[in-house]
Amino acid sequence: MINFQTSPNEYKHWKLDIAGQVATLTMDVQEDETLAEGYKLKLNSYDLGVDIELNDAIQRLRFEHPEVAVVVITSLKPRIFCAGANIYMLGSSSHAFKVNFCKFTNETRCAIEDDSKHSGRRYLAALNGTASGGGYELAIACDEIYLVDDGNSAVSLPEVPLLGVLPGTGGLTRLVDKRKVRRDRADVFSTLAEGLKGKRAKEWGLIDDHFTTSKFQDRLDARVAELVAGGKGSAATGIKLNPLHDYKYVKLKLNREQRYADLTVLGPEGPQPTTPEEIQKLGDAYWPLQAYRELDDALLNLRVNEPEIGLVCLRTKGSIESVLQIDETLTANRDQWLIREIILHMARVLRRLDLTAKSFFAIVEPGSCFAGNLLELLLASDRSYMLMDSDATIAVSEMNAGALPMSNGLTRLQSRFLAEPEKLDDVFGEKKTFDTEEAEELGLITFAPDDLDWEDEIRVAIEERTSLSPDALTGMEASLRFAGPETMDTKIYGRLTAWQNWIFQRPNAVGPEGALTNYGKPTQAHFDFKRT
Amino acid sequence: MINFQTSPNEYKHWKLDIAGQVATLTMDVQEDETLAEGYKLKLNSYDLGVDIELNDAIQRLRFEHPEVAVVVITSLKPRIFCAGANIYMLGSSSHAFKVNFCKFTNETRCAIEDDSKHSGRRYLAALNGTASGGGYELAIACDEIYLVDDGNSAVSLPEVPLLGVLPGTGGLTRLVDKRKVRRDRADVFSTLAEGLKGKRAKEWGLIDDHFTTSKFQDRLDARVAELVAGGKGSAATGIKLNPLHDYKYVKLKLNREQRYADLTVLGPEGPQPTTPEEIQKLGDAYWPLQAYRELDDALLNLRVNEPEIGLVCLRTKGSIESVLQIDETLTANRDQWLIREIILHMARVLRRLDLTAKSFFAIVEPGSCFAGNLLELLLASDRSYMLMDSDATIAVSEMNAGALPMSNGLTRLQSRFLAEPEKLDDVFGEKKTFDTEEAEELGLITFAPDDLDWEDEIRVAIEERTSLSPDALTGMEASLRFAGPETMDTKIYGRLTAWQNWIFQRPNAVGPEGALTNYGKPTQAHFDFKRT
Repeated sequence: MINFQTSPNEYKHWKLDIAGQVATLTMDVQEDETLAEGYKLKLNSYDLGVDIELNDAIQRLRFEHPEVAVVVITSLKPRIFCAGANIYMLGSSSHAFKVNFCKFTNETRCAIEDDSKHSGRRYLAALNGTASGGGYELAIACDEIYLVDDGNSAVSLPEVPLLGVLPGTGGLTRLVDKRKVRRDRADVFSTLAEGLKGKRAKEWGLIDDHFTTSKFQDRLDARVAELVAGGKGSAATGIKLNPLHDYKYVKLKLNREQRYADLTVLGPEGPQPTTPEEIQKLGDAYWPLQAYRELDDALLNLRVNEPEIGLVCLRTKGSIESVLQIDETLTANRDQWLIREIILHMARVLRRLDLTAKSFFAIVEPGSCFAGNLLELLLASDRSYMLMDSDATIAVSEMNAGALPMSNGLTRLQSRFLAEPEKLDDVFGEKKTFDTEEAEELGLITFAPDDLDWEDEIRVAIEERTSLSPDALTGMEASLRFAGPETMDTKIYGRLTAWQNWIFQRPNAVGPEGALTNYGKPTQAHFDFKRT
Repeated sequence: MINFQTSPNEYKHWKLDIAGQVATLTMDVQEDETLAEGYKLKLNSYDLGVDIELNDAIQRLRFEHPEVAVVVITSLKPRIFCAGANIYMLGSSSHAFKVNFCKFTNETRCAIEDDSKHSGRRYLAALNGTASGGGYELAIACDEIYLVDDGNSAVSLPEVPLLGVLPGTGGLTRLVDKRKVRRDRADVFSTLAEGLKGKRAKEWGLIDDHFTTSKFQDRLDARVAELVAGGKGSAATGIKLNPLHDYKYVKLKLNREQRYADLTVLGPEGPQPTTPEEIQKLGDAYWPLQAYRELDDALLNLRVNEPEIGLVCLRTKGSIESVLQIDETLTANRDQWLIREIILHMARVLRRLDLTAKSFFAIVEPGSCFAGNLLELLLASDRSYMLMDSDATIAVSEMNAGALPMSNGLTRLQSRFLAEPEKLDDVFGEKKTFDTEEAEELGLITFAPDDLDWEDEIRVAIEERTSLSPDALTGMEASLRFAGPETMDTKIYGRLTAWQNWIFQRPNAVGPEGALTNYGKPTQAHFDFKRT
């Protein structure tokens, strides 16, 4: 059972130091502190446990340290920044684990970019040694990359030449789409096991600059000072993210025999704060933060610890009015730093749902509160079932109009109404709450069975869904969920991930004679050279 | 050895009838006329042989029948339009063959859309019976879809529920991106083995209309007449596409032991026609048509018949001046129908190259003619090597500025200079021809070794490339070749294809207990239900 919760005083592999507006995240992987048996995390190589800490640190910076303007990511190991994902860990992991591992590390890299883009924090990769594979992919997720010139240190993506797999954390896409490295140079770089050092790496756009060992720290400090001086600063005080013990707002019921889960999100209860001051005081107990943190944890748990659960039935319970009041407060205060972070967090959790390789059905009944931000759960679902009952209602709020975008940059309503964008006007008209008939007429739900058919229809739908090939469903959902425009993120999760998953099964990588299997062994890889 | 050349009088599975401005392509698959052993093509199901004929027919329509304004695709079989790709053929094919089969059928569907978009020919799918799987995917590549209402006929994508694989010819992407079917409806439809009939299929946007059996032909004729009347008509006379015997302008040398090929395109020789009339008279012997038809055939041959060739070294030989003169003629007359078709054909062949799962290195020496349209070969390559010699030159023409777009809608020069779009001004400045130093300075080539290093550098590059995992190279190239924007085509070839290839290897599809393996057998599929 893998636990995704941690906190700085539990970190084994990272140190998080805050000095004024500058945070330094230092990687110092303890080689024996692995998440599983059978490998050692040498040379700052990582496994999922290391990345769970990184994810936590990024998250905490946003909530606990709003004063931080610049984050420096560096290493405590001499001559090595990070050697990437541990190869023996990959070689000994199941296909499903490798896929989930890469998805999570991708989400953490995207969270860094989300922070940079929306919260303005600058991330500097201070490569005080070689950054290879996932090490360079971590660097390329940062805003700026500086490499030490010590005659030895290089950046590299040695996956293709050494392991017969792809860089699994967005590296190829970021190379040509983010840093816009010329495709022929990207081709050379990605097949060059030893990578490139300072001068050429800079010339090709792989790094932003390189400094000799003696000047490295000074030049870096100068750049950090520049960024701090140019930033807008923040006098805000953070809130504490406490451990999630028993979930308060998320109820997860696992029907393992039938391979589906019921996930119910409970709406807020009782009076809710309406000013930033009150919210700051309430801290992580504020419903939108706590409920979505729990939802995030539940999704990660389902992905990694419950692989046989193929379907999640999403339900909500509570007062629509209360959810809409929350949304009103969030919308009215969205420029305040904490509210902004809460909304951005909600958006990331919903994107984690979009990217989860499970089917989602939303089930709407009287007592449900699929309203505003929680309506996104319904819109994110592969289908929705709403009981034909005048007491069953759903509602939209301003939060459905842009605050919680999908990876493709569209809102879930825009994605839904690609064919009829004018429907958005109907949905965002005067009327905000819709009963089943209205919801069906507007095209907001998939099915509206009546009371007589309700239980049978849901039961049969669950049985049918969970009887289908889980692989075909994953590919189908990945194709149907993201119509419309593409972004770097959708390229990473769609195209790159799909290719990597394909390669992760190929005998040339993971067979007895595959490159990943034979890495570091006296035996050599032997390829079937048929091109596919 | 699979032969991609055919002609209407050799067709076994299709009839191509032309009546005035209307062409009717009728599918009547002969079940015993298969490309391989072990399956029968029942119910208008198809194998690669059937699609090679379809591809030929579409191509011929463009060149031989410019008068045709509307193409009706229908079936001669009672109650069945097309059952899609033959399942037993898929079940008995190698992974590599399945992948190449789907790629080719995808290219043929995209060629239909290319014809519709750029040449204005309307394609009507007249579904006089059930269209399932690839049958519906063929329909959805057409502009309009009409289904008979006979109480039985339906459209369906039964791949996920019945076979545990994805619709392999762009169906899922076209569902939500082309027809913009709501994603929850697309989800339901794609998991419903029996599909949907007339009324609901229309309501959900899966078809354009449905007519009862007795009215079907009349209503269809009426729609065709409408389209013909609304079209601009064409008094042009086509040219004949003769069989390609020995290649005249393409030389293919297979170094099978070393797993690479040398593909040399010879430039035009002697005086070339400069007016549409002269070109029409010359017909398919006109260099840009013949050379690119040969190149197309060579690429298909390399893909399917030479799977172990991992790398193609692209060379050209001839006069740069002559190539540039051709481009001038093409550019000056690009609105004339034949020239337009020739240019569109060149663009499709170059896209076929972009999408070929082999590495491409362009090799430029004195005597090369990488100019204008042939410069695209260099720009499409993963890398280029140009000898540092004042006699080696490359050149741009107007044809590099938009006439030959990649699948992502960009020119290859735009893709190359994503980071520095201003470089396009330098490339398209007064000076059109560049020697090696200039080409390197402009960033048009990757490497410029001098005479001393030349042979060694090329030899080592070839050896290194062909030693790498062919699977990793395929995934890497698919990621690096298409930076920038995405289109429906790139989604189909990138995202959808990658997922399908992944699923095509999964035990749940092709293992002894997989759904594809067990289809139609008394045994049942058994899934490993772990979601990945």
